[in-house]
Amino acid sequence: MTTKFAARTSIEQVEEGNDLAPKFDANGLIPAVTTDAHTGELLMVSHMNAEALSKTIETGEAHYWSRSRQALWHKGATSGLVQTVKELMIDDDQDCVWLKVDVAGGASCHVGYRSCFYRRIPLGEDAAHLEFTDTEKVFDPKQVYGDAPNPTKL
Amino acid sequence: MTTKFAARTSIEQVEEGNDLAPKFDANGLIPAVTTDAHTGELLMVSHMNAEALSKTIETGEAHYWSRSRQALWHKGATSGLVQTVKELMIDDDQDCVWLKVDVAGGASCHVGYRSCFYRRIPLGEDAAHLEFTDTEKVFDPKQVYGDAPNPTKL
Repeated sequence: MTTKFAARTSIEQVEEGNDLAPKFDANGLIPAVTTDAHTGELLMVSHMNAEALSKTIETGEAHYWSRSRQALWHKGATSGLVQTVKELMIDDDQDCVWLKVDVAGGASCHVGYRSCFYRRIPLGEDAAHLEFTDTEKVFDPKQVYGDAPNPTKL
Repeated sequence: MTTKFAARTSIEQVEEGNDLAPKFDANGLIPAVTTDAHTGELLMVSHMNAEALSKTIETGEAHYWSRSRQALWHKGATSGLVQTVKELMIDDDQDCVWLKVDVAGGASCHVGYRSCFYRRIPLGEDAAHLEFTDTEKVFDPKQVYGDAPNPTKL
């Protein structure tokens, strides 16, 4: 099974219609926002290509495109922290999707935190120093990923 | 006042440190995810350049970079639907920010809906037909934006 996407023919079709007609960017990607289906917390922001979106729709498990590895990324394939999609939404101009997920193991961040967003930027300062809002790791990345290269790029 | 960003010197600094050292992409942009500070609902996903992020930190009001208009975008300058930032977060590798906002007027979507995400993609279908989860518009875009060009691109 391969999910078929509609051609984009008019603004009315894209914004007010029922056709799934996603707009992938020049690199063939669409941003994907992932929240916890129960708490609503933002877990991660990543990207999908057409295949990842299609696989996510077909399997109900989150698939992304890893830009650092340049490969289809079945989230949890290495870590076991699979994301089961409870609801999948698309935005007005269909260039972004939103996944509400259940996370096996409760963690989504390769650093070991529950969410990738564990630091706050204070407002009204000209040299901002980040404040940690979460200091407890859910898992030890070394144990889970071993010697796999860190996806963070400088 | 101009917010100063730190240079990115190590993965440890970026992931586990207190320096604000955002990574802008080849176009000088970083994705920005905006949720309602009270309901947690995802309102919109857009982009910031360094100036937009700096202005957001300094003023506490959401500023983005409009890719369709290629201009700094003080959200609400046209519509009056200003977003007051209650909390600003950054992710593990500092290439994405999360704004939790109060929205004047309660709407964030140029189509007139409360959120840009008003349609669901059903799972497990090979030719997905979108389902509307919100059918009530908060405002009439024609009244608010008049003849301004629609930002949606085909």
